[in-house]
Amino acid sequence: MKSKKKKKSYQTVNRSPGSVYYRGKKQNAVTAIDIINYNKEAYTTIETQNVEEALHFKGTQHVTWININGLNNTSEIEKLGNNYGLHPLTLEDIVNTTHRPKIDEFEDYLFVILKMLYLKNEELVYEQVSMVVGEDYLLTFQEADGDVFNDLRARIYSGKGRVRSLGPDYLMYAIIDAVVDHYITVIEAFGDKIEDIEDRVFEGNSDNNETATTIQSLKREVLKIRRSVFPLREVISHLDKMEHHIIDEKTHNFLRDLYDHIVQVNESIEMYREMVWGLLDMYMSIISNKMNEVMKLLTIIATVFIPLTFIAGIYGMNFDNMPELHYKHSYFILMGIMVFIFLMMLIYFKRKKWL
Amino acid sequence: MKSKKKKKSYQTVNRSPGSVYYRGKKQNAVTAIDIINYNKEAYTTIETQNVEEALHFKGTQHVTWININGLNNTSEIEKLGNNYGLHPLTLEDIVNTTHRPKIDEFEDYLFVILKMLYLKNEELVYEQVSMVVGEDYLLTFQEADGDVFNDLRARIYSGKGRVRSLGPDYLMYAIIDAVVDHYITVIEAFGDKIEDIEDRVFEGNSDNNETATTIQSLKREVLKIRRSVFPLREVISHLDKMEHHIIDEKTHNFLRDLYDHIVQVNESIEMYREMVWGLLDMYMSIISNKMNEVMKLLTIIATVFIPLTFIAGIYGMNFDNMPELHYKHSYFILMGIMVFIFLMMLIYFKRKKWL
Amino acid sequence: MKSKKKKKSYQTVNRSPGSVYYRGKKQNAVTAIDIINYNKEAYTTIETQNVEEALHFKGTQHVTWININGLNNTSEIEKLGNNYGLHPLTLEDIVNTTHRPKIDEFEDYLFVILKMLYLKNEELVYEQVSMVVGEDYLLTFQEADGDVFNDLRARIYSGKGRVRSLGPDYLMYAIIDAVVDHYITVIEAFGDKIEDIEDRVFEGNSDNNETATTIQSLKREVLKIRRSVFPLREVISHLDKMEHHIIDEKTHNFLRDLYDHIVQVNESIEMYREMVWGLLDMYMSIISNKMNEVMKLLTIIATVFIPLTFIAGIYGMNFDNMPELHYKHSYFILMGIMVFIFLMMLIYFKRKKWL
Amino acid sequence: MKSKKKKKSYQTVNRSPGSVYYRGKKQNAVTAIDIINYNKEAYTTIETQNVEEALHFKGTQHVTWININGLNNTSEIEKLGNNYGLHPLTLEDIVNTTHRPKIDEFEDYLFVILKMLYLKNEELVYEQVSMVVGEDYLLTFQEADGDVFNDLRARIYSGKGRVRSLGPDYLMYAIIDAVVDHYITVIEAFGDKIEDIEDRVFEGNSDNNETATTIQSLKREVLKIRRSVFPLREVISHLDKMEHHIIDEKTHNFLRDLYDHIVQVNESIEMYREMVWGLLDMYMSIISNKMNEVMKLLTIIATVFIPLTFIAGIYGMNFDNMPELHYKHSYFILMGIMVFIFLMMLIYFKRKKWL
Amino acid sequence: MKSKKKKKSYQTVNRSPGSVYYRGKKQNAVTAIDIINYNKEAYTTIETQNVEEALHFKGTQHVTWININGLNNTSEIEKLGNNYGLHPLTLEDIVNTTHRPKIDEFEDYLFVILKMLYLKNEELVYEQVSMVVGEDYLLTFQEADGDVFNDLRARIYSGKGRVRSLGPDYLMYAIIDAVVDHYITVIEAFGDKIEDIEDRVFEGNSDNNETATTIQSLKREVLKIRRSVFPLREVISHLDKMEHHIIDEKTHNFLRDLYDHIVQVNESIEMYREMVWGLLDMYMSIISNKMNEVMKLLTIIATVFIPLTFIAGIYGMNFDNMPELHYKHSYFILMGIMVFIFLMMLIYFKRKKWL
Repeated sequence: MKSKKKKKSYQTVNRSPGSVYYRGKKQNAVTAIDIINYNKEAYTTIETQNVEEALHFKGTQHVTWININGLNNTSEIEKLGNNYGLHPLTLEDIVNTTHRPKIDEFEDYLFVILKMLYLKNEELVYEQVSMVVGEDYLLTFQEADGDVFNDLRARIYSGKGRVRSLGPDYLMYAIIDAVVDHYITVIEAFGDKIEDIEDRVFEGNSDNNETATTIQSLKREVLKIRRSVFPLREVISHLDKMEHHIIDEKTHNFLRDLYDHIVQVNESIEMYREMVWGLLDMYMSIISNKMNEVMKLLTIIATVFIPLTFIAGIYGMNFDNMPELHYKHSYFILMGIMVFIFLMMLIYFKRKKWL
Repeated sequence: MKSKKKKKSYQTVNRSPGSVYYRGKKQNAVTAIDIINYNKEAYTTIETQNVEEALHFKGTQHVTWININGLNNTSEIEKLGNNYGLHPLTLEDIVNTTHRPKIDEFEDYLFVILKMLYLKNEELVYEQVSMVVGEDYLLTFQEADGDVFNDLRARIYSGKGRVRSLGPDYLMYAIIDAVVDHYITVIEAFGDKIEDIEDRVFEGNSDNNETATTIQSLKREVLKIRRSVFPLREVISHLDKMEHHIIDEKTHNFLRDLYDHIVQVNESIEMYREMVWGLLDMYMSIISNKMNEVMKLLTIIATVFIPLTFIAGIYGMNFDNMPELHYKHSYFILMGIMVFIFLMMLIYFKRKKWL
Repeated sequence: MKSKKKKKSYQTVNRSPGSVYYRGKKQNAVTAIDIINYNKEAYTTIETQNVEEALHFKGTQHVTWININGLNNTSEIEKLGNNYGLHPLTLEDIVNTTHRPKIDEFEDYLFVILKMLYLKNEELVYEQVSMVVGEDYLLTFQEADGDVFNDLRARIYSGKGRVRSLGPDYLMYAIIDAVVDHYITVIEAFGDKIEDIEDRVFEGNSDNNETATTIQSLKREVLKIRRSVFPLREVISHLDKMEHHIIDEKTHNFLRDLYDHIVQVNESIEMYREMVWGLLDMYMSIISNKMNEVMKLLTIIATVFIPLTFIAGIYGMNFDNMPELHYKHSYFILMGIMVFIFLMMLIYFKRKKWL
Repeated sequence: MKSKKKKKSYQTVNRSPGSVYYRGKKQNAVTAIDIINYNKEAYTTIETQNVEEALHFKGTQHVTWININGLNNTSEIEKLGNNYGLHPLTLEDIVNTTHRPKIDEFEDYLFVILKMLYLKNEELVYEQVSMVVGEDYLLTFQEADGDVFNDLRARIYSGKGRVRSLGPDYLMYAIIDAVVDHYITVIEAFGDKIEDIEDRVFEGNSDNNETATTIQSLKREVLKIRRSVFPLREVISHLDKMEHHIIDEKTHNFLRDLYDHIVQVNESIEMYREMVWGLLDMYMSIISNKMNEVMKLLTIIATVFIPLTFIAGIYGMNFDNMPELHYKHSYFILMGIMVFIFLMMLIYFKRKKWL
Repeated sequence: MKSKKKKKSYQTVNRSPGSVYYRGKKQNAVTAIDIINYNKEAYTTIETQNVEEALHFKGTQHVTWININGLNNTSEIEKLGNNYGLHPLTLEDIVNTTHRPKIDEFEDYLFVILKMLYLKNEELVYEQVSMVVGEDYLLTFQEADGDVFNDLRARIYSGKGRVRSLGPDYLMYAIIDAVVDHYITVIEAFGDKIEDIEDRVFEGNSDNNETATTIQSLKREVLKIRRSVFPLREVISHLDKMEHHIIDEKTHNFLRDLYDHIVQVNESIEMYREMVWGLLDMYMSIISNKMNEVMKLLTIIATVFIPLTFIAGIYGMNFDNMPELHYKHSYFILMGIMVFIFLMMLIYFKRKKWL
């Protein structure tokens, strides 16, 4: 495994800036497109793999939400981008899935990048979601199938809540809100993991280095979560303060509320980070405590028996002239002395609270 | 317990934003409403469980303080909210008891969320209190029975102090002041806990891992307190700087004073946090010191007796030809040598200040 | 002692805000008032316990410095306050001796709270000093007898320096300056304490846990000093920038100089804080080093003698058929081998630089 | 090696400010100059060692990129600088290769210093690149041969991308972009190094102090990288916000994108820094764990056998009157007792989960 | 030494603010004054101990640089100060050599305090330099003989560089520049010290507590350097932004350059600070590693020989009926078993990679 790493050659793709080059993991899945076209009265949905079908929704009086799953088919994405007049840098950022959450303002649209985090079979999935919000459309780009928007879709279909009666700016808010709500779930799960490992540390029957390894991986994870989540605060703050014709006055109330949520999420992450960092110190103190116990036992045993063994050794010597050996009761007297020393030792350790 | 946690499924309630959904612990207690209606001359109080009775106080020349205990009856709260013209997001925030302290300005009212901390049977209780402050009314929403406002109520009943002669903005100030005063009590109690554990660490007769566990739980607690209390500083600062028709000029003096108090509270928390963090290091150094003592004892015993035991072993050998064994005084000479070695060792350790 | 703490009940005095309630330690000493009335030409001094005598100095063309020692006689203080038109919150703050340093601007006066720190019999005394600075008077309130202003008083009496020819704003500056000068003394003494404990740590003949206890108490102390001193920086900065009719233009130069001093004090405190925090790590490394030494000694002794003892044990066995026992020189040969092993071991440890 | 260092005399070159004095490592290579002169239609390239050839490109309608490799020939650089009207301080900064990344605005040109980091035979190379960007020219100054701009040159030659159709401001952007792209490569390689050492720490079969040495060198390296990279953020931010006639409006979009990249780079560095700092703690806990294991083994062995050896020692004594010695089955009974003690000990350690 | 410290009485010199009282170490050296009077064409120098000679240079068209070495002759300094119209606070600050670097603007002059650091016989010297910069003069005040300005003086004498043709503001810049250049030298020397101690830590043959002591003294030193150097950044930034008739427009370019240097110096200090702080952790891990090695050796020896010694002890017992003792080959069989156990043990430790 190490050798594999060593072989890795660090080649920078020194591509021309603004060129649409997919930087994520290669995924074989074909690009899947699903479109929801709705207004207050009605909605239609389309699932397709052909980007052409997505192009003719422009300019209707409906809100059009075009969701693209899978980003390796860059030419299709460019086609869509050109249809909606996206800047080359926007297209480049969409397919670069290592991007930091951010918001870009353009004349005709807003461009938002954020990280969607959710649990899939107890595994934490990180996926980049980019959003282009225009006057009457919203494009979302995801790396792969599976997202956290099913409930939002259900609300659109059923017509419950406000989403059907408001514009794409509200839809954008609803999408970010769904993402942030899942952050909370993810963080709670993370908090439970910390408690688990804490319990394990305190019980103390942890295998050799497993606990340290787990703590280290928790450290990595909390740093990674933080990195994905923290910049969103700034994004939402910017969205809230921004004056752009796409964002309706009413939506600002919701954005402010969302800002409160993301601040709370960030504080939780920071709190867990502090706790994870403290875990190793805690673990070290538990180990030290155990070592102290082990040492005490060793010391008690050695301190009690080594002097006694020495005395026994004395009378095991073979000198011709050792008068004590020949007295009748000397053996019993010696045994009495040894018991006495033994008891004295025990009392001494009792006093020192070692026993 | 661990298995229980493992089973927990992380379902996000992907509710529509702005819908009034109770997020706190389900509490079976029915919602209790108590109303105080007062002006400089007189006051009336009502206790009820029917929200309808709370509605007809609007528009009188009195200040009306409506306090709701228990938030699981969301429909009643919505009824009250609609009567007072509250924004849907306000209603959502009232019943979401995991909210961060904050202040929202609306046209007709101010909305404040804060955390009430108090000690109940030596246990620290965290409870969210939301306040809606209008022109002539103040609504407070609490999660459960029991609060820190009894003294304030007594002042209203007795007519002592300024509260009866001033408006709901002063009442709001008095409520926050009561909450902050209890923070101080809570923090003092926390400080005593730290001193207790410090004493225990220094006395050193702590059980195996109990001390480490206690320190860890103190860490959690101080982080939790900080999280509940810190954002209030910003809230009060905002209140102080805000120019809103509901807040009277005179109240600002009191808010500035309150701001000084909350700053002091935050500094105390920060100081205790530093001390808790230092505790574990202290504990580790105490353990190390003890281990050093244990090691010294072991080393002294082993260093003194192991060589002597070796010598005794020599003369316990059964070789035919060991001339020393047959000299008349060799046993006594050897014993003398051993005593000499023993004393030399003791002097050596004395010199090294191990004894 | 622990039980005593447990009994302590955390009752919040839920007093009405603005009421004058003494929060400090109850001190039986009667309130002592001393008054200095001076202008460029002359001065008079009065010592009294009757606040009435302090009231008729108002409105003379002199600067009147009224100093009150002892704050438990709240009614007298209220009387004085009413005479000088102090705001109820000011009176409350004066008798609340746990207050954070701060400055409040009022129409007719400035109100400053600061902490006076000085050494009394090698003990560090914390005492709150509140100042009310008006057009032609200055009131100081102290918790107890003893302060750091004797030199300033001497300058007033003798007419040396500027103080006699300038107004109460300069007197205020001179008082704060005296307090800050004593901070420097206190911090230097603290620095010497740190050096003492450092020396003790390095000498290494520290008792069991005394050093750790001392370090912990230094930590507390530096945190407490910091807490008392740090906010003064903000106070002085505010004073310097403030435009208030009471503060003369010329005094600003002095305030700026004072600001430089307090910044320097704060930096020193921060530096000592870092050093105290580092002390425990240093102490731990010294302990570890010692343990390593102890372990080495134990290991050398055990490694040298345990194998030799084993060999001696072999030839102490009582088998009938042990041919070596009967050779003439085998005892001497064995002794030779043992000496050889012994020397080899010593050389080995010498090589490893353990000896 | 130590003695060599001791001999080093710290002489400050107390040169007059603004004098062009080369501060880098003396490199014997002659200064190499390569010039690319291009516009949308065509390009020409020249490689020379004579600075005179570089002077007559000024004022053509082309963009002229003059790249100088090697800075020890200061007189040539002064000649070039005078030709392009560079300020003496600019010239001084160009040849001072220990400079911090920065940007200086001048009337006629912008001056940018940054650090180029790349991997050469698995070694990390730090090289300072200074850029002077004028109306129709761009000068780059490098310490030595080898850079990260080959791909950019290829794009100029082939005419792909935007670079040929835009001005020197875009060229400047493209150069910084290439540098930042290589930062990412360098940081990824650094991340792999950290993982390697983490694996090694957890496997635990690390040599004596090699791991600690490696961690320490990683610490140094991350600090050095951070120092080279961090200030660039400010530089790019300044470039983005700057209004200077040289920077075209369109270039600002690209600069903003670049800013996002450098922020991401800085965050990665900060994350790796935290991880490197955590590594040593992790390593310590692994060592402690191992020591605990070692101690347990020692304690088990000693605790089991030392008491048994003592018993055997008892019956090895040579007293005349030891009745047990003469009973027929006493040997076998004693052996049985010893086996029993042995088993009891094992069960005890099993219970304590030491086995 | 400790007793000496205890005796030290902490007397605050409660002097009147603005009085000229020398706070530095008493130095017996008489005050030495050297004066350089120059313009573009010529210069004259005077060395004297009489301040009167320095007074009549005022108002000539030359730049007059008056340098005073030694500050204990406060009356002479006051005389000079009065001649140049210095504010009493300026005079007080000049003779208070514990002052923090700062800049004060006055109507007629600028007053700058900074710390000069240089190496004298491998010792780091801290010396305060105060500067008063007026329209046509510059006064420098130093604590003692010896400074870092000899090269600057040489440039004035020789007429090289810009200094002769520019005003006292440029001279001020040149002086600060010389000081900052020596900071770099000092910091490099400090960096070498750190590397030395790192090497020593890794080699591991450090004496008992010497390494810890050295690390602690490095900590102190880096804190002290930081304290002396950091505030200068703010001073230079202030100088650069200031609009004062004394500072010429052209000088601002140089000040900006100087600002870059001091930022770089501060970053280096911060980096070394982090490294020094990390050193102790590194040292601890090295010690732990060594202790682990020591423990392993002890454990191997004890684990191998203690059981064998026990077996030998068994057959050294003197029971009448021990059948094994009488078989012919039992001794040899037992020896074989012991060798077998011995080898098994070795293989076990080999497997565990302890050998």
